[in-house]
Order: sequence, then C-alpha cells, then structure tokens
Amino acid sequence: MGTAKTGRKLHLNAFLMDTGHHEASWRLPESDPYAVWDVEYYKRVARIAERGKLDSIFFADSPAQGHDPARRPPGKLEPTVLLTVIAGATEHIGLIATASTSYNEPFNLARRFASVDIASNGRVGWNIVTTAGADAARNFSFDDVPPHKERYERADEFVHVATKLWDSWADDATIADKAAGVHTVPALVRPINHRGRFFRVDGPLNSPRPPQGWPLLVQAGSSEDGKEFAATWAEAVFTAQQTLEESQAFYTDLKARAVRRGRDPESIKILPGIVPVIGDTEAAARDLEDQLERLIDPEHQKRNLADRFRLDPDALDLDRPLPLDLLPKEDEIQDAKSRYTLIVDLARRENLTVRQLIARLGGGRGHRTFTGTPVQVADTIQHYFENGAADGFNIMPAVLPSGLEAFVDKVVPILQERGLFRTEYEGTTLRDHYGLARPANQIHTAGVAS
Amino acid sequence: MGTAKTGRKLHLNAFLMDTGHHEASWRLPESDPYAVWDVEYYKRVARIAERGKLDSIFFADSPAQGHDPARRPPGKLEPTVLLTVIAGATEHIGLIATASTSYNEPFNLARRFASVDIASNGRVGWNIVTTAGADAARNFSFDDVPPHKERYERADEFVHVATKLWDSWADDATIADKAAGVHTVPALVRPINHRGRFFRVDGPLNSPRPPQGWPLLVQAGSSEDGKEFAATWAEAVFTAQQTLEESQAFYTDLKARAVRRGRDPESIKILPGIVPVIGDTEAAARDLEDQLERLIDPEHQKRNLADRFRLDPDALDLDRPLPLDLLPKEDEIQDAKSRYTLIVDLARRENLTVRQLIARLGGGRGHRTFTGTPVQVADTIQHYFENGAADGFNIMPAVLPSGLEAFVDKVVPILQERGLFRTEYEGTTLRDHYGLARPANQIHTAGVAS
Ligand SMILES: Cc1cc2nc3c(=O)[nH]c(=O)nc-3n(C[C@H](O)[C@H](O)[C@H](O)COP(=O)(O)O)c2cc1C
Ligand SMILES: Cc1cc2nc3c(=O)[nH]c(=O)nc-3n(C[C@H](O)[C@H](O)[C@H](O)COP(=O)(O)O)c2cc1C
Repeated sequence: MGTAKTGRKLHLNAFLMDTGHHEASWRLPESDPYAVWDVEYYKRVARIAERGKLDSIFFADSPAQGHDPARRPPGKLEPTVLLTVIAGATEHIGLIATASTSYNEPFNLARRFASVDIASNGRVGWNIVTTAGADAARNFSFDDVPPHKERYERADEFVHVATKLWDSWADDATIADKAAGVHTVPALVRPINHRGRFFRVDGPLNSPRPPQGWPLLVQAGSSEDGKEFAATWAEAVFTAQQTLEESQAFYTDLKARAVRRGRDPESIKILPGIVPVIGDTEAAARDLEDQLERLIDPEHQKRNLADRFRLDPDALDLDRPLPLDLLPKEDEIQDAKSRYTLIVDLARRENLTVRQLIARLGGGRGHRTFTGTPVQVADTIQHYFENGAADGFNIMPAVLPSGLEAFVDKVVPILQERGLFRTEYEGTTLRDHYGLARPANQIHTAGVAS
Repeated sequence: MGTAKTGRKLHLNAFLMDTGHHEASWRLPESDPYAVWDVEYYKRVARIAERGKLDSIFFADSPAQGHDPARRPPGKLEPTVLLTVIAGATEHIGLIATASTSYNEPFNLARRFASVDIASNGRVGWNIVTTAGADAARNFSFDDVPPHKERYERADEFVHVATKLWDSWADDATIADKAAGVHTVPALVRPINHRGRFFRVDGPLNSPRPPQGWPLLVQAGSSEDGKEFAATWAEAVFTAQQTLEESQAFYTDLKARAVRRGRDPESIKILPGIVPVIGDTEAAARDLEDQLERLIDPEHQKRNLADRFRLDPDALDLDRPLPLDLLPKEDEIQDAKSRYTLIVDLARRENLTVRQLIARLGGGRGHRTFTGTPVQVADTIQHYFENGAADGFNIMPAVLPSGLEAFVDKVVPILQERGLFRTEYEGTTLRDHYGLARPANQIHTAGVAS
C-alpha cells in the first residue's frame, strides 16, 4: 500500500489492560505480574503511547471482580484515579476513563470528570458504559443486572444530566472582582432543576465548566440500544468487529444514525479494535501468538464460555464445533448482547471448534487479532481507514508494554511516512487530537446570561 | 511556656480551603482568586505543609454549591482527584479527603480510596461525613436532607461495608505463580455477602487490600450521633471548640466513649481546629485580622445567619445581641446540629452583637480564631496539648498560602525546639505519622485462608 489518498488523518487509541489483553500475558517471562497494582508501571506505558503521538489511552472498567483471580489479575485501579496519576506524568496524550451510568450518581461523576479535566488541562474522556453482569449489580444492592433497555434509558438521562451540570456554569463565570467583592457572578452559575424518570438533580455543579466544555464522550455498545445511544451522544466509538465487511456495515450504519439525529457524520469517530501481534517476520509474529496460546487453560475457558452461553460445561466438547442449536437467542441475553452475537457469528462463520474459539477469544475477547509484520499491520489499518470501515483504531496490545512498544516504534512510523498519522501533537486537548469541537454551552449562550 | 513535659508528640493537620478559611481571603492583594481551580496552586501549598513536617493536609467537601458565588469560590475540585494530584507532587505528607456516606455507594468509595492509597503509597485518609444541607440532598433525587439519625445509621453501615471490602483480599493474595498459572489465590479473595438495612453488597472488592489496610478513618461530627459514630470508627477527630474547658470536656467525653467500646484511648486522636492569625508582633497580628474583617459584607452574612437559624433576616439587628428566645432548639435542627449549638453558645457566652458574631464566624466559622505572635500561638497549642484538651491541632489558616507559611516557618520551629513536634518524618504512611496501627484483616486472619 502507498501514501494516503486524502489529507484525512487516522486516530489511534491505546486500550491498556493489565500486562496486556491476552489473558495469559502476565505469565510471560518478560511480564511483571505485580505491575498491575503499580502506578509507576502505568505511567511508563502511557509515556510510550505519548512517544507514539497517539490520540489517547483508555482503561476499561467494571465495578466487580469479574473473573477467576487465578487466571488474570482480578481487579483494577479505579480509572479516574489512575488517569489523574498519569495526567501528572504526561503532557499531551488524551486520557479516557470508563465509568458506569448504572452504578453511579450523575452529580458525582460529572463533578469527578470535571476535576480530572481540570487536572489534565483538558485531556479527559469518559467511556460511558451501562455495565453488563450480575456480579456488578450485586455490589450495588441489586439482585440481578437491570434489564438492558432500562440500563440504556438510565444512561441517556444520566448523560443528559451530566451535560447540563457541566453547562451550569458559564465559561467566564468567575470574574474575581476584588474591589466589588464578586468572586463568581451568581447569574452565570445556574441551577439545572432536572426532573426525570431516574434522577432529580437541582444543580448547579460545584465546579467550573471543564476546559473542554464537556469531557470527550466515548461509547462502546453495539446492540440496537447501544447504537442508538452512540448515535445520540458518542463522539468516539470503540467497537469489536471481525471482518472488513462487518466493520463497513457498522461504520455506515452508525454514521447514518448520527445523521438522522441531525449530527455531522464527522462528529462521531469510529474506532474498531485490533489486537496486533507484531513480529519482524511473519514467522516471528506467529511464534509470539503460539507462545501465548499455549499458556491458556482450555478447560477453564470452556467453563467461562459455557457460562456466557448459559450451558452446562459438559455440553461443550473442546474438539468439536460450538453446538449452535443449544445456544440462547440474542434477545434472551440481558448483559453484553452484541458481544454474545459477535462470538456466535465468529464461531459459525469460521466453523471453529470450541478450542479454536477459545484461542481466538484469549487474545482479543472478540476483537480482531492481526498477526503479522509492521508493514502488514499498517496495511490493514490503512485498508480499513480508506475503505469506509474506520476513522482510526483501538490498539489492544496482547502483551504490555512490549506490544505497545512494537506498535509505536515500528507501525506508527510507517503510518506517519504514508501521511496517515500526525508526527507532532497539534492541539492541546483530547478534543483537539480527535478534531472534535468544544461543545457550546446549552444553558449560558455566548458567555452571557440569557 | 517551656519544653515538653513528656515524650508525647503533637499531631498537626493543615485544613486547606480555597485561598484561606476567611471568606474574604481571596480579596486580599496577595491572593490569586483563580488559584482555587488550579492544581498547581494546591501542589505548592501542600509542599509548604510538607516542609513543616505536618502529619497531613485535609480538604473539606460537600456535593453542592453551598453558598453565594459572589462571596467566596462556589465550588471545589473533587478531593480524591485533587489529593491524587498532590500525591504525585509530595513524598511524605498524609492526604485526607472528605467524602459523604449519604450520597455515595460503599463499593465505589471503598474502591476509590483503595486506589488513592495505592497511588500515594499509603498516605490517604477518609474524612467520613454524613453531609448536612438540603442543597446536597437535592442533587441526589431527595427532596430534603434525610433525618440526622438515619444519616448516621447509614454511615455506620457504610463504613462497616467499606472495611469488609478492604479486608476482602488477604494482604498476600497475589502470588503471581507463572508456572502454575495462579495470579491471585482464589481462597484469599472472598465475597463479603453483606445484607443490611441500607446496602446489599456481595463483594469482593476489585482491588488489592490498600497499603494501610484501611485508609485512616477521620471524622468530625460533634452531635450525640456524631460522637457515637466517632467513638466507634474514628481514628482522628476534627472538632470545633471555642474554649479550653469545652475542648477538655469534649476530649474526655470522646476518649471515654471509645474506651466503653473496648478501644484504646490512644487509638483515637482528637484535633480541635484553630485559625491562627500570626504577626511578628501582637499589633501586626491584630492589623491582619482587622484587614480581613473589613472585607466582610455584614448584610449578606446576616442573611446567611438568619437562614441557619430559620429566621427572617429582619429579625436580626447587626448592632444588637442575637435574639436567643426566637431561635429553634438543637433537636429541631436536622443538618449541622453541633455547629448550630456552638454558634448559639458562643453568642450567648460572650454576649456578642450580630455584627461581632459575624466577624468571629467569617474567620473560623465556629473554630477558635487565635490572633498573636508565633510564641503565643505555640504557647496555646502546648497548653491545650498538655492539659487534656487535644492530641494535636487542625490548623486552619485564614489566608493561604501566607498563613500556612507563617505557621510552618515561625510556629513549627518553636514546637520542634520544645520537643513537641517531629523534626523529620519517621514512618512512611499516614498511619505512621499519627502513630496508629495498621488494622488487622477481619476476614483473612494472618494471611491464611480461614
Ligand atoms: C473496546 C471496548 C471496550 C469496552 N469497555 C467496556 C468497559 O470498560 N466496561 C463495560 O462495562 N463494558 C465495556 N464494553 C462493552 C460495551 O460497553 C457494551 O456493554 C458491550 O459492547 C455490549 O454492548 P451492548 O450492551 O450494547 O450489547 C466495551 C466494549 C468494547 C468494544
Ligand atoms: C474541622 C471540621 C471539618 C468538617 N468538614 C466537613 C466536610 O468537609 N463536609 C461536611 O459535610 N461536614 C464537615 N464537617 C461537619 C461535620 O462532619 C458535621 O457534619 C458537623 O460538625 C455537624 O456534626 P453533627 O451532624 O454530628 O452535628 C466538618 C466539621 C469540622 C469540625
């Protein structure tokens, strides 16, 4: 592939997880398994991403333990705290934290994101999730996860309230007139008096409007409800897709939904995930992949998969195809609907045995694993980018920090040479990096009390 | 006064607020009124406290705007975020953040404090508050503040759940056995299965046990319910007292309550607040005090006071005593009961006019203002400390950073010379500074699954 066909630039996010996305990454000789509780480790990894001029780093989250403690680290530092630490150790890179609308209050979360945006000089983004999983629900006085539709309805009202709170102060509300004794102009700090189905919030927020107006709104739901939500609110969308065709369909569909809501299709950036397994030769890349696969415990993963499918583990045979006729329908799934469908489609399309399916999920958990040389990885990215499938990519290194270093030091320079990616940061905020406008204030127009 | 009578050491906390505790501090020529939204400012102030070897810094908080935006900065950076920033800019000093049990979920808060404790290498404390004020309630779908008693019942259950969550992991749960494929030992990470009146929380926490076991538990309620709560949970107690006798009575009472619960009286440190207005001469100190008083708007404060007393502002005359017969009884007050009583007692005892009362509150909001030379301030502190009134002090500079600098550079050296205060940090954690033990794990005893 050659130089860019247009002046359009790629956006790249590094999705950081533990010692890597592969569940067995901590078992590699190079990995420090205690690093997952060590803020110095995350600072180092973030600086690697910043060296590559990436738009942002991102931490996923769920307020629950989530999996067997033996297999992979059963916990995470809280993302807004961790990204605040990283803000102090970096200068440019955007910082995207996941937080749940199902298990937080809008006032608290709006305020915390405002504070992190201030602490980072306008570099924060919020990955808005509704949180699948009964384990999380049971940490918040629920017996089971609330219905999928209701979670998205709550999310919609939650974000509505949060944006109103961020807008409750005019940008220039503080005038600090010492002589007159007016610190902040009362008329420029207004209650929001929200009265809704899920929340009643008077406001105003007890924090100035964030540097970015609102933090960047990021989202990753792929179900029907998830896509409607994204089309309404999201400015960047993470998505898991296995093929070019699926990515194109998702891309076209989501942009069209945004347009139907009166939005500019450029105001929503779509970033499929890719797990790049990079070697200087194809053989070296393949070796790395094999090394990771050998560290997976298939019996344990079989139990996990059975759980997801609500089947008895004995119904699955590692060396036979997935028993498609036994599986539930997507509309019976209340937690992560779209991920469920993706996994079933992958198994069906490639006619994978349970063992093969497990190997594919160990690396990317449904995201596309791409094993190859730096040029091959760059080619794939360019191909998707130039063929209506992506505005950029969510880079999910199987092993950290080495997988991110390989990407930054070997793939990024190729993308830069081809004119597809920045060679220096051009703006200062996360919105600047993604080329997204600072939102106008809904409550105070043009800085004047209306 | 002379050198210390015993080897017992004082504990000193710096209570940082905006550009100072005096509501008009931002109007002084030396103050930068925009600094209140600037993390660099707070880092500088924290480093001054650390230069003085203080035990800790502390930020108060309420999830509401709280007062007229014109008079003083109507917002705050969220304390756990702000202290995370400061953790990266300091090495030793303890970091105490306020968070409300009435408007948070225990899982979220326990986890966030665990993360800040990890990020600060064991330097975090939690000032546990139940949050008075209908304005906060109305940001969380309540019509009014929940009853005082119920707030404290919820607080008790909240802290119970939080401590169980911190103890849900054994200290040595992560073993990272790469060969066996065991990252964290499942038996050393246990659910808590809490079922209570306010919360049902399965757990475990998705975070390792914090470096301090639990963050230091701090509290500041002075009502009957507040003192019972403190006697049960608090390891450090902030309190507002106007006289030596009141301080002694509070000190004796609270230690006795702790003993009745089977606690060692040394395990609860009592720190009355003091607003030191320091001048090299008494006249210089008095000048500084006058300068601040002149910046208060008495008409505005009269309205505030009337609000607190649920009176029509016209019922108050600035130049006459407080109309004691018109005031409600403490048990009719649902928000900050003990502060109400303190203010009424102060006005009665000193027979203050409304104007005089306002001047006293502008500085310390009920805390003791002490105006004098460095030696006089040190004498007062020593006198309280050696006469059963305090284990240390909560230093509330009227103006920041200058008031803290004066304290650190002029008063601290006197206390050090007298052998009352450390000259170097001796331990590394906030618990070390206060001489408080790391709590034993309630769930995993001696690191062995029981
Ligand atoms: C890259 C990516 C990251 C995600 N991160 C999180 C996360 O951190 N927390 C979470 O609860 N869900 C996360 N999700 C899941 C989605 O938010 C969503 O729940 C899931 O895709 C199912 O979507 P649906 O409920 O709309 O079907 C992520 C999804 C993707 C593709
Ligand atoms: C030094 C000090 C600091 C306090 N900080 C806070 C605070 O940050 N947030 C809060 O809601 N209350 C704060 N309080 C108030 C107490 O937590 C408590 O609500 C108040 O003293 C009334 O106590 P009571 O409700 O037990 O009567 C503070 C009190 C003192 C003495």
